[in-house]
Amino acid sequence: MAKRLEGTPRADGFRMPGEFEHHAGCWILWPERTDNWRNGAKPAQKAFRDVAKAIARFEPVTVGVNESQYSAAREMLPENIRVVEMSNDDSWVRDCGPTFVVNEAGEVRGVDWSFNAWGGLVDGLYFPWDKDDKVARKICEMEGKDSYRLDDFVLEGGSIHSDGDGTAIVTEACLLSEGRNPDMTKEEIEQKLKDYLGVEKVLWLPNGIYLDETNEHVDNIVHYVAPGKLVLAWTDDESDPQYPLSKSALDYLEKETDAKGRKLEIVKLHIPDEVLITKEESEGVDTVDGTLPREEGDRQAASYANFYIANGAVILPLFGDKIHDEAAKKTLQEVFPEREIVGVFAREIILGGGNIHCITQQQPSGQ
Amino acid sequence: MAKRLEGTPRADGFRMPGEFEHHAGCWILWPERTDNWRNGAKPAQKAFRDVAKAIARFEPVTVGVNESQYSAAREMLPENIRVVEMSNDDSWVRDCGPTFVVNEAGEVRGVDWSFNAWGGLVDGLYFPWDKDDKVARKICEMEGKDSYRLDDFVLEGGSIHSDGDGTAIVTEACLLSEGRNPDMTKEEIEQKLKDYLGVEKVLWLPNGIYLDETNEHVDNIVHYVAPGKLVLAWTDDESDPQYPLSKSALDYLEKETDAKGRKLEIVKLHIPDEVLITKEESEGVDTVDGTLPREEGDRQAASYANFYIANGAVILPLFGDKIHDEAAKKTLQEVFPEREIVGVFAREIILGGGNIHCITQQQPSGQ
Repeated sequence: MAKRLEGTPRADGFRMPGEFEHHAGCWILWPERTDNWRNGAKPAQKAFRDVAKAIARFEPVTVGVNESQYSAAREMLPENIRVVEMSNDDSWVRDCGPTFVVNEAGEVRGVDWSFNAWGGLVDGLYFPWDKDDKVARKICEMEGKDSYRLDDFVLEGGSIHSDGDGTAIVTEACLLSEGRNPDMTKEEIEQKLKDYLGVEKVLWLPNGIYLDETNEHVDNIVHYVAPGKLVLAWTDDESDPQYPLSKSALDYLEKETDAKGRKLEIVKLHIPDEVLITKEESEGVDTVDGTLPREEGDRQAASYANFYIANGAVILPLFGDKIHDEAAKKTLQEVFPEREIVGVFAREIILGGGNIHCITQQQPSGQ
Repeated sequence: MAKRLEGTPRADGFRMPGEFEHHAGCWILWPERTDNWRNGAKPAQKAFRDVAKAIARFEPVTVGVNESQYSAAREMLPENIRVVEMSNDDSWVRDCGPTFVVNEAGEVRGVDWSFNAWGGLVDGLYFPWDKDDKVARKICEMEGKDSYRLDDFVLEGGSIHSDGDGTAIVTEACLLSEGRNPDMTKEEIEQKLKDYLGVEKVLWLPNGIYLDETNEHVDNIVHYVAPGKLVLAWTDDESDPQYPLSKSALDYLEKETDAKGRKLEIVKLHIPDEVLITKEESEGVDTVDGTLPREEGDRQAASYANFYIANGAVILPLFGDKIHDEAAKKTLQEVFPEREIVGVFAREIILGGGNIHCITQQQPSGQ
C-alpha cells in the first residue's frame, strides 16, 4: 500500500504545495516529556488541545500519542479528533513528520528526511531521537502514501517553506549549521531541496529569530501566504537583538525575485514584547543531562509568523501582549481576507521551544 | 470522528455479519512476547507473515505492532501490507479487537468488549492485559468507526460466531467460565449477546476443543460457512479425548434449529493427528511467573475449523499431517466452491495457543 520510492519528487512530477493550498487534514503529536514541558506536560497538553480543537473546526485532525499517554490524550481531546498511537521523542511533527508533495493528478506522497533533533551530537536538543525519525514513515504508512526516504540528508519541515509555485525559502543559519549536513556544500544542499521539494529556486535568508534553538528555522521568521507574498517577523525597536536579523531578511527579500521572476511582496508582522521564562515555569521542568535547560529569565523566540494555515482559517499564536496580539490578528486578516483568524494563547508552546506551526503538519489533499 | 455510543447495536439496527460476507480488510497483531512464542518469537513472526501475505492477496491487511517491533515488522512484511503502531500484550486480535457490526445502510460500528486475557485473575493466561484491552478502541479510532464499549461484560471475539442472519453460536465452557462474567446468569449473558451482536437466537455448544486454553472457544470447534451451515471439528477415533466433545456438539446441533427455524447442516472436518510440543520447542520459550508454561509433550488444540474466511478465499491452517491436511482442503473446497482454499503451515501459531482465526479480525465493508 505505502511503498518506499527511489528517484526524486521533482523527477516524478511532484512539488511541495503552499500551506495555503487545500488540506486533507492536519497531524499533531502529543507533548509528554517532562524535561521539556513543565509540570508533567499538563499545561502544554492543554495548549496543544486548544490548537487541535481550533484546527478541527476547519479540517480533520489526527493526534499521534505515545502508548503511555493514549488514554489521557483520548480523554482530553474531543471526539471529532482522531487519536492514534505514534511513538515519538517529542511533539514537533512539523520537524519529524513527512513533507507532503503532490502532482498534477492530485496524488500525494511523503518526503521522509533524516531527523536528528536539530543538530544531532553537535548541538541537538535531546538524545536519542530514533522514535521521532520514524514518525514520517509511520504517518505515510497509516495513510497509505508512498514516500521517499533520505538516509543521507538531515532536514526538518520547519526549516523550509514552499510557495507551491517553484520557490522554497530557508535560512543559512539552519541549513548550513554544523549539526545538519556538514559535508555538503550550499549548492549540494540546494540541489537536494530542488529535487525533493520540486522547486526551481531556493531563497536563502541569513537568519531567523533571535535565540531560536532550532538554529533559526525559517518558519519562525517568515511564512508564505501566497505565491510571491510573505509575512516577515519584524520589530521597530532597533535596539532589539531581533532587529538586525529581521532587517537583513528584509534587505535580502527586497532585492530578490522568485522562480517565476516576481518581486516579492513583504508584509511586516511585529513580534510581541519579550517573553521571558518565569521562576515558576523554570522550576516545573525536569533537569536531565543532555537536554536544553529551561532557565528563569530566558528569552523565548516568540513570533507571530509561526501560525498554521488551515482550510479557510489561520491559527495564530497569541502571547497575552494585547497590543501586538491585536496588531498581528489585524495584519493577518488583511493578508487573508477570506480566512477566519483564530488566535490561540500559546505561551506554553513557546516555553517548549516552538509554536503552532512547529507542532502541526498539513497533509495536502492534492486538490 | 469515532464516537463512543450509548445504547446497543440491536436497538440501533446493527448486526454482526457472517465472516463470509464482504470485508473492507483484515487486522493482525504482531507476535513478540518471548514467554509465549519460542526463540524470540521469530518463528511465529514468520508464520504470522505467511498468514498476512496469504490474506493480502484477497483484501487489505493491517498489522498492528508494538513500538519495539515496528521496524522489524515493517522489514519482514511486504509493502502491500500496512503496518501501524498498536501496543498489545499479545497478538490475538480476534479476541481483543473489536467485533464489527453493520446496518442496512452499510454503516460499520465496533463493539469493544472488556478483555481480561481469557479469565483474568481466575485462570487468565497472562498479566497484565491492559494494552490488549485498548486495541478495539484504537482500531475503531484509526478507522473512524463509532463503537460501543462494555465495561461490565468480558468477552473475546473468538468465543462467538455469527451467521449474520439472526443466530450466534458459543460454548458454555467458555461463556459460563468463572473467569469471565461469574455474576451473570446464562440468560443475562445471552441477552448481552443478542443486544450487542444483533441476533435473536444463541446456540450453546457444551464444549470446544480438548485442552484449548481459552476455556474452549467456539471458533476452534465450529465455523459458520453460510446461514444454516457449519463445519465441525471432528474425530472418528472414539478413544480420542476430543471425541466426546465433538460428539456432544454434533448431537446438540442435530437437534437444534436457528433463529430462522432452519435445521442446521453440519460438515465434519477431521482434526489432525496429535500435535505435541517438542523438547526443542519447549526450551525456546522464556519461563515467566504467571504465564502458562509450554512444556514438552503438551498436546496442542489443533483444529482445521480455525480458518479465516477472506474475500474470495479461505486461509486454512495446515499441520504437516498430509492425510488430514489434504482432507481438510478438499472438504473446504466443496463447502466453498467459489473460494480459493489457501493453506498456511501453522504449527508455530498453534504452539502459541491459537490459530489463523485467532490471530485475524475481519473488518466488514457493510456491502
